[in-house]
Amino acid sequence: MEKTAKYGMIELQLPRTNQGSEEIPEAVFCLDGKKAAVRGFAENEDHGTVRFMPTEEGKWTWEMNWGSEKAEGSFLCGPAECHGPVRTMDCHFRYDDGTRYVPVGTTCYAWIHQEPRVVADTLETLKTAPFNKMRMCIFPKSMMYNQNDPELYPFAKKEDGGWDVRRPDPRYWEHLDRCLQELEKLGIEADIILFHPYDRWGFSTMEQEDNLIYLDYAVRRLSAYHHVWWALSNEYEFSFKKTIADWDQFGELIAREDPYHHLISAHNWITPYPKREWLTHVSYQGGDPRNAFHIRVEYNLPVLVDEIGYEGDIEPFWGNLSGFEFMNRVWTATAFGCYAAHGETFHREDEVLWWAKGGKLHGKAPERLKFLRELLESLPGPMEPACLGVVRDPNGLFDSANPFILNILENSGEKGKQKILDEQTLPVGVHPDYKLIYQERAARSIMTLELPENGKYRVETVDMWEMTRETIEKEASGKITLHLPGKEGIAILVTRLEGEALA
Amino acid sequence: MEKTAKYGMIELQLPRTNQGSEEIPEAVFCLDGKKAAVRGFAENEDHGTVRFMPTEEGKWTWEMNWGSEKAEGSFLCGPAECHGPVRTMDCHFRYDDGTRYVPVGTTCYAWIHQEPRVVADTLETLKTAPFNKMRMCIFPKSMMYNQNDPELYPFAKKEDGGWDVRRPDPRYWEHLDRCLQELEKLGIEADIILFHPYDRWGFSTMEQEDNLIYLDYAVRRLSAYHHVWWALSNEYEFSFKKTIADWDQFGELIAREDPYHHLISAHNWITPYPKREWLTHVSYQGGDPRNAFHIRVEYNLPVLVDEIGYEGDIEPFWGNLSGFEFMNRVWTATAFGCYAAHGETFHREDEVLWWAKGGKLHGKAPERLKFLRELLESLPGPMEPACLGVVRDPNGLFDSANPFILNILENSGEKGKQKILDEQTLPVGVHPDYKLIYQERAARSIMTLELPENGKYRVETVDMWEMTRETIEKEASGKITLHLPGKEGIAILVTRLEGEALA
Repeated sequence: MEKTAKYGMIELQLPRTNQGSEEIPEAVFCLDGKKAAVRGFAENEDHGTVRFMPTEEGKWTWEMNWGSEKAEGSFLCGPAECHGPVRTMDCHFRYDDGTRYVPVGTTCYAWIHQEPRVVADTLETLKTAPFNKMRMCIFPKSMMYNQNDPELYPFAKKEDGGWDVRRPDPRYWEHLDRCLQELEKLGIEADIILFHPYDRWGFSTMEQEDNLIYLDYAVRRLSAYHHVWWALSNEYEFSFKKTIADWDQFGELIAREDPYHHLISAHNWITPYPKREWLTHVSYQGGDPRNAFHIRVEYNLPVLVDEIGYEGDIEPFWGNLSGFEFMNRVWTATAFGCYAAHGETFHREDEVLWWAKGGKLHGKAPERLKFLRELLESLPGPMEPACLGVVRDPNGLFDSANPFILNILENSGEKGKQKILDEQTLPVGVHPDYKLIYQERAARSIMTLELPENGKYRVETVDMWEMTRETIEKEASGKITLHLPGKEGIAILVTRLEGEALA
Repeated sequence: MEKTAKYGMIELQLPRTNQGSEEIPEAVFCLDGKKAAVRGFAENEDHGTVRFMPTEEGKWTWEMNWGSEKAEGSFLCGPAECHGPVRTMDCHFRYDDGTRYVPVGTTCYAWIHQEPRVVADTLETLKTAPFNKMRMCIFPKSMMYNQNDPELYPFAKKEDGGWDVRRPDPRYWEHLDRCLQELEKLGIEADIILFHPYDRWGFSTMEQEDNLIYLDYAVRRLSAYHHVWWALSNEYEFSFKKTIADWDQFGELIAREDPYHHLISAHNWITPYPKREWLTHVSYQGGDPRNAFHIRVEYNLPVLVDEIGYEGDIEPFWGNLSGFEFMNRVWTATAFGCYAAHGETFHREDEVLWWAKGGKLHGKAPERLKFLRELLESLPGPMEPACLGVVRDPNGLFDSANPFILNILENSGEKGKQKILDEQTLPVGVHPDYKLIYQERAARSIMTLELPENGKYRVETVDMWEMTRETIEKEASGKITLHLPGKEGIAILVTRLEGEALA
């Protein structure tokens, strides 16, 4: 009997006889009286396929239909060999099996559209890189440094030159399958960008009817990969032809048609996509981690800062952060309870920049993201921002202020209040067992720390750039004075040894 | 015959006989039929004094009156030995004799209130420091690191313990005179802060009548120093007892009573002091140089960013910038056509921090300010911000934008427009003969530069941190590609060799 692991993929096929091209293969999978109806896709002229990801162990039976063709069978689902799809848990993530998932993403928008040598380089790089999520596009990318045409396109062309979304090109989709399978082996979630605006081939301007046909196909074909996420957009506002109603149709289609309820996001340029039932988390673009935090408070969803900036040296304003500034933003976002992803744009004469094409990494951030990821994964659980209360109810802060200062604030309008609020909105993450105080660029040599009197706590400094940790207080409690290195990029990590919780 | 230099000080004295303590010594100075009536002060129980700064060469005659006492005489005013008082010139500064003045200020709020050893250290430090302006308080300072009491206070005490502003303590004022004379020798403008809120002795809560009596005395006593500036406040909003009407009275009094029309400012905490006839420039507190630039546009006055932050390592959020971040802000403000001052707050066990007490410098900024000052003084004239037009009329920018992008901006509210505007508001200073493009933290390795076709221009990179200059194009014109160091803190200096002006 065929076997698979829990969260693995079973693929059923029926040969083509006389089905119309519009007919969709379907199958029903049963285990212990529970049934799952799953739609498949016609991969090419010869056969129809249904893919299925079992999420429970046991002996499954199935029945497949494609037009007048039928088949049935069974398979054995054994223990999982991975942790399953990533789910949200409050403002954080976990795998389906409950294991914590600390996202350390990266972006190579068009890596699957490059020549085989570059694709191979990308995969080789990913073997030792710290990333466990990859933002990547279905459609090729047209932009500076992206002047090359891909070898394969998702659809055949119509006679008028437009794309025939009813005729997916199996060569493209098989290539995508192989790429996804490689990511799966590396333990990397595939955050698949379904629509994006950087286009010269006409994919971004297809009619909505065609968009939906394509999207439905992608969902039927790709949902059974446990590590797939649905990113509706890169910069949804820039897809000039699509309205919010159009995007909503995409989100609703996926939420309805994806049997496994993979994560769904819609990435912005300026304004985060409005909150929706189907939106599982925020895929945020913005260089100021405080904004990401404010969005976390507003949406009460996990916030992935998928574009916090790029470590690099290219000309456009968005592509030339130093490694230090990049990592400083990442640490700030982290201590605000958000998750920032990697991005890299170093000028290369061969135009292979990691941000779009993959290839090789040239920056100083990746090893420091590894250090951060290892640190975060060593902690007993995710952190909550300590200043949630201040941001949710700033009036509390203002009410407790000196009445003269309040008066100044009132006279100085929104600007004054914002200034006070910003100064109080600090990247400090808390958990009952630890507290992470990230100092950003503050170069303090001295600092007061108030710990509970009823407990013992270890205090370490973490140098995010040098990637070092030093215990500066082995067993402290109450109000203490810390002596710090007097430089930028220092975090203070307090760990509870015994007694009162830190949050 | 007594002699003085133009911009020097003549001091006349009459002995006390039976004048009431309220009577003010006065003198009239004449040269070639022109007359200047000047009020003086009763320095102590024994004599009344009138000080005068001649601004024209020649043989001056004078007549002094103090109650029933009278005297007359003459003196010869020879060529100037300094450049005279600093004046504004559009949004910049020059000395009275027309020489350019590029302000590189610093702040030692309470340096004159420290013990003689510290005062001596301060003066010794200033000999080799790059500063040509000092913000300093009349009243002592009470705050963290400022727990010591001064030896001298400006006034005698009344029986009820309050300050008797009608009885200035000559020991204090003579000490202040000596301090001002030392600064004068060092070529440092004395930006005298007349009122400030950090007080535990009662100076900040005197009645307005007393404030005016004190202020009138200070003006009569100190105006004849060519290098005196009037800073009404440190953080005017924090002086809870004073209203805008009170501050206006101060400004009006000085504008009316200071015969030499020294510069007058009012330094803010959050909101710049409202524009007034008597306000000669903006003494601005704020860490974001873009805000300083916006204020420059709004006020059309020179903007001194007198508190752009402090290089240091102390605990409060305002006192722990790295040297790099501090200098980065200074260069940004400079290229926006503003002038940023130095400030330093390194923790010292002896509590002698430069920011308040003077003493010695410990930071990395001063030598880099020297480099900047020398560079600016070597340029043929002050620079104007290149993006004035954008900021004055942002609609021009938006009108020329892609209609789809405009639509996004309109949908994203003020935030979107602000984002675009900020991205276009770059620290680039222009002059017909040069252009300074400061890159802030952008770590570009490549950049396009459009120079006029009809001219020849030298292009240099300036590394503001390493304090180096390198010519990367000896003679360029038209559109060229620059290869830059790919690091933060790089400026590009374009110099016209021949042909079309750069502004």
